[in-house]
Amino acid sequence: MRMSQSFIPTMRQDPGEAEVVSHRLMLRTGMIRKVAAGIYSYLPLGLRAIRKVENIIREEMNRAGAQEVLLPVLSPAELWQETGRWDFYGKELFRIRDRHERDFCLGPTHEEVITDLFRREVRSYRQLPLTMYQIQTKFRDEIRPRFGLMRGREFIMKDAYSFDQDETGAKHSYQGMYDAYCRIFTRTGLKFRPVEADTGLIGGISSHEFMVLANTGEELIVYDPSSQYAANVERAHLGPAESATPETHDMLEKVSTPNATSVEDVCTLLKVPLTRLVKTLLYQTGKKDITAILIRGDHQANEIKIQRFLGIHELNLATPDLVSQFTSAPLGFVGPIGLSNIRVLADYAVAAMDNFIVGGNEPDTHYLNANLNRDFRIDGSGDFRQAQAGDPSPITGNPMETARGIEVGHVFMLGTKYSEQMGATFLDAQGHSLPAIMGCYGIGVGRTVASAVEQNHDEKGICWPIPIAPFQIHIVTVSTSEQTQKVADQLYLDCCSQGLEVLMDDRNERGGVKFNDADLLGMPYQIVIGDKGLARNALEIKDRKSGQKTDVPLSQACQWIHDKINENS
Amino acid sequence: MRMSQSFIPTMRQDPGEAEVVSHRLMLRTGMIRKVAAGIYSYLPLGLRAIRKVENIIREEMNRAGAQEVLLPVLSPAELWQETGRWDFYGKELFRIRDRHERDFCLGPTHEEVITDLFRREVRSYRQLPLTMYQIQTKFRDEIRPRFGLMRGREFIMKDAYSFDQDETGAKHSYQGMYDAYCRIFTRTGLKFRPVEADTGLIGGISSHEFMVLANTGEELIVYDPSSQYAANVERAHLGPAESATPETHDMLEKVSTPNATSVEDVCTLLKVPLTRLVKTLLYQTGKKDITAILIRGDHQANEIKIQRFLGIHELNLATPDLVSQFTSAPLGFVGPIGLSNIRVLADYAVAAMDNFIVGGNEPDTHYLNANLNRDFRIDGSGDFRQAQAGDPSPITGNPMETARGIEVGHVFMLGTKYSEQMGATFLDAQGHSLPAIMGCYGIGVGRTVASAVEQNHDEKGICWPIPIAPFQIHIVTVSTSEQTQKVADQLYLDCCSQGLEVLMDDRNERGGVKFNDADLLGMPYQIVIGDKGLARNALEIKDRKSGQKTDVPLSQACQWIHDKINENS
Repeated sequence: MRMSQSFIPTMRQDPGEAEVVSHRLMLRTGMIRKVAAGIYSYLPLGLRAIRKVENIIREEMNRAGAQEVLLPVLSPAELWQETGRWDFYGKELFRIRDRHERDFCLGPTHEEVITDLFRREVRSYRQLPLTMYQIQTKFRDEIRPRFGLMRGREFIMKDAYSFDQDETGAKHSYQGMYDAYCRIFTRTGLKFRPVEADTGLIGGISSHEFMVLANTGEELIVYDPSSQYAANVERAHLGPAESATPETHDMLEKVSTPNATSVEDVCTLLKVPLTRLVKTLLYQTGKKDITAILIRGDHQANEIKIQRFLGIHELNLATPDLVSQFTSAPLGFVGPIGLSNIRVLADYAVAAMDNFIVGGNEPDTHYLNANLNRDFRIDGSGDFRQAQAGDPSPITGNPMETARGIEVGHVFMLGTKYSEQMGATFLDAQGHSLPAIMGCYGIGVGRTVASAVEQNHDEKGICWPIPIAPFQIHIVTVSTSEQTQKVADQLYLDCCSQGLEVLMDDRNERGGVKFNDADLLGMPYQIVIGDKGLARNALEIKDRKSGQKTDVPLSQACQWIHDKINENS
Repeated sequence: MRMSQSFIPTMRQDPGEAEVVSHRLMLRTGMIRKVAAGIYSYLPLGLRAIRKVENIIREEMNRAGAQEVLLPVLSPAELWQETGRWDFYGKELFRIRDRHERDFCLGPTHEEVITDLFRREVRSYRQLPLTMYQIQTKFRDEIRPRFGLMRGREFIMKDAYSFDQDETGAKHSYQGMYDAYCRIFTRTGLKFRPVEADTGLIGGISSHEFMVLANTGEELIVYDPSSQYAANVERAHLGPAESATPETHDMLEKVSTPNATSVEDVCTLLKVPLTRLVKTLLYQTGKKDITAILIRGDHQANEIKIQRFLGIHELNLATPDLVSQFTSAPLGFVGPIGLSNIRVLADYAVAAMDNFIVGGNEPDTHYLNANLNRDFRIDGSGDFRQAQAGDPSPITGNPMETARGIEVGHVFMLGTKYSEQMGATFLDAQGHSLPAIMGCYGIGVGRTVASAVEQNHDEKGICWPIPIAPFQIHIVTVSTSEQTQKVADQLYLDCCSQGLEVLMDDRNERGGVKFNDADLLGMPYQIVIGDKGLARNALEIKDRKSGQKTDVPLSQACQWIHDKINENS
């Protein structure tokens, strides 16, 4: 594409509205423009990157045997009422009423519509397994849309749904999608990890998130450098801990800790590390019931794990009012010693501690050298906290490391939730009617592109990975001489005819402006054509990411890049 | 694709809901399924045909230098209020309010959004010309959605918008799109005609519709077999007519025509052809004003032409009440002789008639041998009627023929309507701020696929044109012998590796069922593989459209089809 004839409105200045790198660079490179909060137009360069990702997804979905369909944006309310999600989804669902007063929503996801299609069209186990997918615009009325394509209200997703006749088949379909996702993200050229994800309250069924690793990511994961294991910190499985070296139990001692209401205050005052302290968190677990959860001072409680342990669907910290019915200690000074009528549960890490510090159950007081069983009893122990760097890998026991990531994909075993609610059944070989076992699988297309920018940029602009670069080659002419123009035109045509994708900056601008724009736009290879090089019959080819420059004879330039690209993609 | 693993839910019976051929066949072949009135899911076969059309469009748009973008579905109300279309569009606009009470519509078209993009990003004539397009899902809350993909409420369109700095440029852009449309529809393999279209009340600016010719089409066009001229019957330009052979003006004669209120009644009674009679149509053209339009008995008045002649924006037949203030004749007996205080205008065809029949302006009475100027005067003549078969071509004067068509594309010169309303200006070479001159260009993607079915089917099913067939080849095995399976598998892989698109019916079904489905689905070439043919080392290849069967040696089958397809696409 010739830049003189293209619509690539680059910006010299950083746009004020952008909070993260990808948002800023996608605006500056003219890839996207905002139409309203969380709603963007994709301009030519942005759309090209989007299409690259879509094509990789499509090829791998097809390879995995999934069937491409396209379901409507407008989803009838009746279907959502059947599953209860019409009410459950709340304000995130864009709702619309047609001229005949019928209610619809703009599909944020398509379980209902695809399950309805299944129940109408599929009768027999012979038609299974069946996986369908679509690449489509989705809608979610986010309360706080932000970060450009990272969290939009109108966004492009690939969603897939599998239907199987039994658990074995469902696992096979799930694994097929998992493998396809690995191929997809490998092919995009991004550094990523599949991580064990939380299945929320459905529980017990598999789920993995695919994370593009980037320092700016919103998600925190732990991974085991010595195995494939990786998990969201909220999901990582932590087993019972061993007391490293059992200590003698020292004498319990009450100390004054005036106004030390936070963990940090207490440890500073007592000059001990956070790891010596145990927090006592009080959760309301019944109308008048409180459960105390003991967590090590440097650990974060994970309410989803606690909920799953307790078998409840909602968990809130107890109100001061309710707390005052059980202890006279103000918040910050509550501890397990002397508490009564309260269930006390300890995180595994706490269960392995000796001589620790707890709240004194009186104002401005803590205990030193508290010990379980000697000074208080617990009703059980479990995995109640988020993982962190240094925690042992559940596979190898080696200490895990943490990384930040951006969730770009999610595979989820749904089970029979939707098929039972909507009567999506089939007849098995014996003629029994059974609900299909479903899985659902999403990829955020726009978010993948934005993640690529988060992972691949420097201070000058984007450094596109070859497979999803809008163009592979950026030709820059630095002379307006006839010879330069002629060589540039010929090279452009040669590259195009070899199937290479070329952006040619043929604008009447200064060299400096063109170089800056080339670095900003970030195509993997820049070819500079100027009189000096031509005098010695050579072109300078720059690798945008490494900055490495190579002089290549004019006649070999096209082939040189062709080979490079094949090597690297 | 192997049918055993595909989601192609064919129907044996005609679905009750389908009114037209394409709707019926697209349901029966499992291409589409209805989700709600005018809202469909595209299943794998339907989506493949859609994608074929989209790809042809995309290639030709790119070739024409248009830039692909993707604008959002959600369009802020503010933009539509600027152009007044928020109110003007009425109930056809799907309106939605977000959680912050901001109004949006679901874009039925994107003039507002693209013009807003232009005014934000384009400053100088040096950035022009600029044509942008998108292929996107559109929404229109049709009062009566029908005929499957022909008239839906959610549908896929290609829409393009051009911006130019002057009339010459705008005409060039328009012509570029016109030429691209000709290439697009030629490449789809459809019989089509570009026809002059009505520009409605914007007037005076070019517009063409692209019609796929089909007997079931809703639109009627006239065309000149001896030139390229074609037009919608409502648009075709008809010049002043010549009296073929001037006749002597016979004596005016009043005759009794009791109860003969229709043109047909009068002509039957008087034993004359419809061409001898002149209808007097009374239109209300002011609060208390009537205009009489004289139209030959066999001709149809065209109210858009009349409006344009009169320079008014609304036209209704006069109410009996109003008519009674000008003549005592009941409707059906009104004529121009003796009418007063009424402007009388004659269609060109009437202006060239002699000795014709008109209403008598009294109950149950007509005049024979009425003659213009002798018996009554007119205030002017013009082109007030629809064209019909036999009318002279405005190019050659030869009689034109009529055909039915389906409008699949529309190119329209918009002028500065939107750019003026929205302030989409640029600075010209002299530094003057000018509004951009715009054009807009649409193609109904789903409707093009449906039109292909209307134009290409027989009693057994669809006969796909090669370029947009979901698959090019349909392999049918008629034996379950190991050899047949092996040959079929090998042929399938060979064809696929040559880039041919193959649907293989490997289902465990009777030959009859498979043949019927192959004819119903309508891929251009069917390859039958059975023991009998294999015994003599041959395959039978059937051309679906012609029904012609050819025996081809097994080793040459793949190449044979490859050559055929290249010949025909």
